Amino acid sequence: MSGALGKKIKVGIVGGTGYTGVELLRLLSQHPNVELTAITSRKEDGMPVAQMYPNLRGHVDLCFATPENAALDQCDVVFFATPHGVAMSQAQALLDKGVRIIDLAADFRLQDTAVFEQWYKMPHACPDILADSVYGLVELNRLKISGASVVGNPGCYPTTVILGLLPLLEGGKALVDTQHIIADCKSGVSGAGRKAEVATLFSEASDSFKAYGVAGHRHHPEIAEQLSAIAGQPVGLTFVPHLVPMIRGMFSTLYLRILPEALDTDFQALFETRYVNEAFIDVMPPGSLPETRSVRASNQLRIAVHRPSPGQLVVLVIQDNLVKGASGQAVQNMNLMFGLPETTGLEHVAVLP
Amino acid sequence: MSGALGKKIKVGIVGGTGYTGVELLRLLSQHPNVELTAITSRKEDGMPVAQMYPNLRGHVDLCFATPENAALDQCDVVFFATPHGVAMSQAQALLDKGVRIIDLAADFRLQDTAVFEQWYKMPHACPDILADSVYGLVELNRLKISGASVVGNPGCYPTTVILGLLPLLEGGKALVDTQHIIADCKSGVSGAGRKAEVATLFSEASDSFKAYGVAGHRHHPEIAEQLSAIAGQPVGLTFVPHLVPMIRGMFSTLYLRILPEALDTDFQALFETRYVNEAFIDVMPPGSLPETRSVRASNQLRIAVHRPSPGQLVVLVIQDNLVKGASGQAVQNMNLMFGLPETTGLEHVAVLP
Amino acid sequence: MSGALGKKIKVGIVGGTGYTGVELLRLLSQHPNVELTAITSRKEDGMPVAQMYPNLRGHVDLCFATPENAALDQCDVVFFATPHGVAMSQAQALLDKGVRIIDLAADFRLQDTAVFEQWYKMPHACPDILADSVYGLVELNRLKISGASVVGNPGCYPTTVILGLLPLLEGGKALVDTQHIIADCKSGVSGAGRKAEVATLFSEASDSFKAYGVAGHRHHPEIAEQLSAIAGQPVGLTFVPHLVPMIRGMFSTLYLRILPEALDTDFQALFETRYVNEAFIDVMPPGSLPETRSVRASNQLRIAVHRPSPGQLVVLVIQDNLVKGASGQAVQNMNLMFGLPETTGLEHVAVLP
Amino acid sequence: MSGALGKKIKVGIVGGTGYTGVELLRLLSQHPNVELTAITSRKEDGMPVAQMYPNLRGHVDLCFATPENAALDQCDVVFFATPHGVAMSQAQALLDKGVRIIDLAADFRLQDTAVFEQWYKMPHACPDILADSVYGLVELNRLKISGASVVGNPGCYPTTVILGLLPLLEGGKALVDTQHIIADCKSGVSGAGRKAEVATLFSEASDSFKAYGVAGHRHHPEIAEQLSAIAGQPVGLTFVPHLVPMIRGMFSTLYLRILPEALDTDFQALFETRYVNEAFIDVMPPGSLPETRSVRASNQLRIAVHRPSPGQLVVLVIQDNLVKGASGQAVQNMNLMFGLPETTGLEHVAVLP
Repeated sequence: MSGALGKKIKVGIVGGTGYTGVELLRLLSQHPNVELTAITSRKEDGMPVAQMYPNLRGHVDLCFATPENAALDQCDVVFFATPHGVAMSQAQALLDKGVRIIDLAADFRLQDTAVFEQWYKMPHACPDILADSVYGLVELNRLKISGASVVGNPGCYPTTVILGLLPLLEGGKALVDTQHIIADCKSGVSGAGRKAEVATLFSEASDSFKAYGVAGHRHHPEIAEQLSAIAGQPVGLTFVPHLVPMIRGMFSTLYLRILPEALDTDFQALFETRYVNEAFIDVMPPGSLPETRSVRASNQLRIAVHRPSPGQLVVLVIQDNLVKGASGQAVQNMNLMFGLPETTGLEHVAVLP
Repeated sequence: MSGALGKKIKVGIVGGTGYTGVELLRLLSQHPNVELTAITSRKEDGMPVAQMYPNLRGHVDLCFATPENAALDQCDVVFFATPHGVAMSQAQALLDKGVRIIDLAADFRLQDTAVFEQWYKMPHACPDILADSVYGLVELNRLKISGASVVGNPGCYPTTVILGLLPLLEGGKALVDTQHIIADCKSGVSGAGRKAEVATLFSEASDSFKAYGVAGHRHHPEIAEQLSAIAGQPVGLTFVPHLVPMIRGMFSTLYLRILPEALDTDFQALFETRYVNEAFIDVMPPGSLPETRSVRASNQLRIAVHRPSPGQLVVLVIQDNLVKGASGQAVQNMNLMFGLPETTGLEHVAVLP
Repeated sequence: MSGALGKKIKVGIVGGTGYTGVELLRLLSQHPNVELTAITSRKEDGMPVAQMYPNLRGHVDLCFATPENAALDQCDVVFFATPHGVAMSQAQALLDKGVRIIDLAADFRLQDTAVFEQWYKMPHACPDILADSVYGLVELNRLKISGASVVGNPGCYPTTVILGLLPLLEGGKALVDTQHIIADCKSGVSGAGRKAEVATLFSEASDSFKAYGVAGHRHHPEIAEQLSAIAGQPVGLTFVPHLVPMIRGMFSTLYLRILPEALDTDFQALFETRYVNEAFIDVMPPGSLPETRSVRASNQLRIAVHRPSPGQLVVLVIQDNLVKGASGQAVQNMNLMFGLPETTGLEHVAVLP
Repeated sequence: MSGALGKKIKVGIVGGTGYTGVELLRLLSQHPNVELTAITSRKEDGMPVAQMYPNLRGHVDLCFATPENAALDQCDVVFFATPHGVAMSQAQALLDKGVRIIDLAADFRLQDTAVFEQWYKMPHACPDILADSVYGLVELNRLKISGASVVGNPGCYPTTVILGLLPLLEGGKALVDTQHIIADCKSGVSGAGRKAEVATLFSEASDSFKAYGVAGHRHHPEIAEQLSAIAGQPVGLTFVPHLVPMIRGMFSTLYLRILPEALDTDFQALFETRYVNEAFIDVMPPGSLPETRSVRASNQLRIAVHRPSPGQLVVLVIQDNLVKGASGQAVQNMNLMFGLPETTGLEHVAVLP
């Protein structure tokens, strides 16, 4: 494959004006095996990318182009950093040209198209491609991803919740009450994207804290579908997302009731064992209290396992929502798909303070 | 009483250099029935209060004085905005002079002195006074407070958690599973006080989010003691506090499993009815998503009741941790103790944005 | 007049959905001599004000109404918290009904209509009314304001710069080089208003700092016009505004070269004498370093006078841009216009921390 | 030299617990030619570095050691990320062993020891070494640095002010009035270091803005000494630093009066020409408004040249105070001293948002 042979992977990005787009550019422009080939934005056609994102001055010379002019079909892989619905409308044409696809939106996250249509208010454009696509959570689906043509990059909240529960649920274990899982999740504001909206203005979101989506959030069915598949049975999940006045970072506090028959379990060891070979999962020492800044701008996800009372498990999970929760995970998927070491271009140390 | 007769209440503050101290000064200097008489700080003896807190320039002329020189015994009431242990050491002397006491620390919060000693690592200095003191949660203990000589002002987290659960637990109701209550709580940084510490530096606490005290927090036994008294039986509580990069504000997300026999309950109505006459409790309309900034610098506490699935209740509670969670609630207690309308001096509109 | 006689002033607000609007509501709802009568928003017609601004729950019962239904002509005074151009289009009709006008936009700030048209890209709709209007900087124009029918409330930056220079320039003094005045000004993000724009999103404006308007800013001609009138000759001004990642607050650093003949001047005394009777101007003691938080949510403006070298004066000025820099100053104007004590309803202590 | 030959440079860090220390660790742990050999902290002796700084988990295995046990004398170079006064006390012993020194404190910044003693309140311990040391501003002293044994890494403010003025002053040009230079500078809070102090607590420094050091700041003599040397005559400088509620980032607004004989100068071209070959200096296109976030966590310094009126020049300079303003610049110096390409290990793209 391209990567393995030393030839650079030709990469296109559709919709590079949002935060996952600029984060892809930051990571890919420093990736040793990537050649940034095309980036599209109908609205910003002709504008140098570095003019919109001055952090890229001197690093990225590309200009935005219209999808028509961007020659995406000559890429090896195209990332979609677009609103929901765009990737599925262009997927077939790219696949026909042998281009692989990594979608950072939701088009290839939910296998149940009825659920997709309920939450995203649009019919799914290509159920066949969806059926062949892989949910791009590397630690869950590594093998499938390495052979995939289309990867649905997981949502940010789902990444933390699924990875924080995976060791407890997989393999038919009876460790925790799977009917009453609580995920109290907190996200930095960049998770809302780079859209001009009153609710995420500095003067609205700063120095304040709120919950949102309590009555229902699109990531709920995504988490539930994955957890149910992992557990081999439907799980019961209460998921409440909150907005934190910080730019990047995600923190999920997971509450689980330990089953009576599992009271002797060493949960710390369970997590450590499960993730011992995972480069991007850090199971912290017992008693740890992770801070989101310890993963700022890095692809690390850290987990701390607590048991405040004998029957109660509390799992703390942190990530940078734009890296492991989006663009970093997408690059991790790309590495796998092109036979590169999984950590290539993703070994940045988190920025602290 | 002083207030009722139009005579001003002479107020002393012990330890006015911290955030609850300056907040007391802000509120009391604008209170129509209060005469600020004395404020002590051994370390800042002689310094004008307004030099340390320039927002008080033109409003407060007092200087800090040593406890010896402050003539606290000529006050009608003394607030202790001090570290734990100070109020109980001075209480008897003040009571002997007829001075009433409102302690913003923990000395008069826990009736069980063994629990107090376990969590605060000091013996209780005056169990007799403690036994006569009242837990200063007005909405729970209004009558007792109005006749009290010593009031233990509630902790900030307990205020939100108790008021968010009170309608569910009181009166022997069987509505929710009281053995598995989860309180996921988030506080602004001012809750940590005005101590020179690395962990709460701007460069440490800004643009980040973390949990703390997962293994145990002093507010846990306080909440548990009150909830158990309210429910008439021990409750099971998991309490995880988190630190939010904002100055003021507290947000508690409470998760409760509804009992099968209570599935028909109208929880919205239950809360509205319980708090209909409470000036400082705002039960918001169904579906509301409260933001902490909507109570910034005010004594309001707002509650939103959600039921994301039939068996699951989620109660959202917000307050300003320095006002309803500390100094405002203390003034509310003072109003009651001196026969004033409860809202006197506490009707400030929250500052938004 | 209404206020003086104890009858409440009937107040209308046009365009109450922005930050100066909600701040007017906060101040006026607590003002003892005001009856909030009408608030307009074409877009939010029928919505309770407290639904958009939950801090007003329990304090303001009004609903937004269309201008047609709002009965503004039955008000004693109408505040315009609107985009530039609205007040001048409605002024004549209101004046005909005897309604006084306070415009928080720029329609009545610049006496030179050519300059107005150059900077605001619209012809002035009522030059006659403009000629009769008063620039509402109380400390400069107190007498005129008390008799005015139309007041142009000053811009936020101009308030700090003019008040920071007034004692140096007025009365034909030859103290500083008026041809090379430098105003390096910094504003919190709320100054940009409550518009959905990418540039003021939390994820754009937080944890960053920038200058803007270096090539030209609308407040430059406003400042220059006022300073030139005060000095009795054209002044030379370099004005660079900057954006600070905070919600409220404005800080202006003014640099002045002291003229050789003025080297013996006691500038501290000059400022103290000039402002000794001003309730809202606090000339701080020598050496003071004001912080914007010391005026947060209050109508105070604080000044510190520094002289780092014999020939160089540095004047530091702070205010809350939404209060003294906008809505508070507007209420101060209203008090004057209706014969009330100037400080009525404006004595809130600043919120710190 | 080590680097050039492919052998790794053995690096020691004295005092690695502060922000410049952890930033050195972040940069050096990703530097391809560096072997981190020793890091000292008397207070944290034995603690893994990654325990104090969890962003380094998986990247740095070192433990803090006492200076005695750290074998600093076997390093090729030692960085001092210590309080002022430490480097000069240990310099001779290290030099005797052939170890080169880069001091991030002020010990080797000021050639005039009298000035040093006046501002740092201690006698200089090694004037001879000082005389041989080089001021580590690469763009000014590249050649000298490459042969230096001791480098005094510039202060953060001086880096921006000197580089923002260098093209105007060097070479005996008569372009601007050098007697009245104004530098209005703004820094993120991390510049104050990781010391437990009330003034830099989150609840003190957040959502506020202030000036400090108006009466005198240690960076003033450092800037003045360098500028005077560059200009070949004493310069007159007014320097006012301000504190911005952000973690990283520095913004300097420089005001210069253009001399009558220089009114025809193309200042944009002057800057572009001067810095055309500098990898870390980005002279932005005319009209640019740099934001500090565009250099966050990178070694870039960006300059924008403005001329708001014919006689007035305004130069805007941004950097990350911990990178180009401290640790990044120190690594840049190390690269030069060891014959490596200057950009080695410093090509990180800035993190935005």
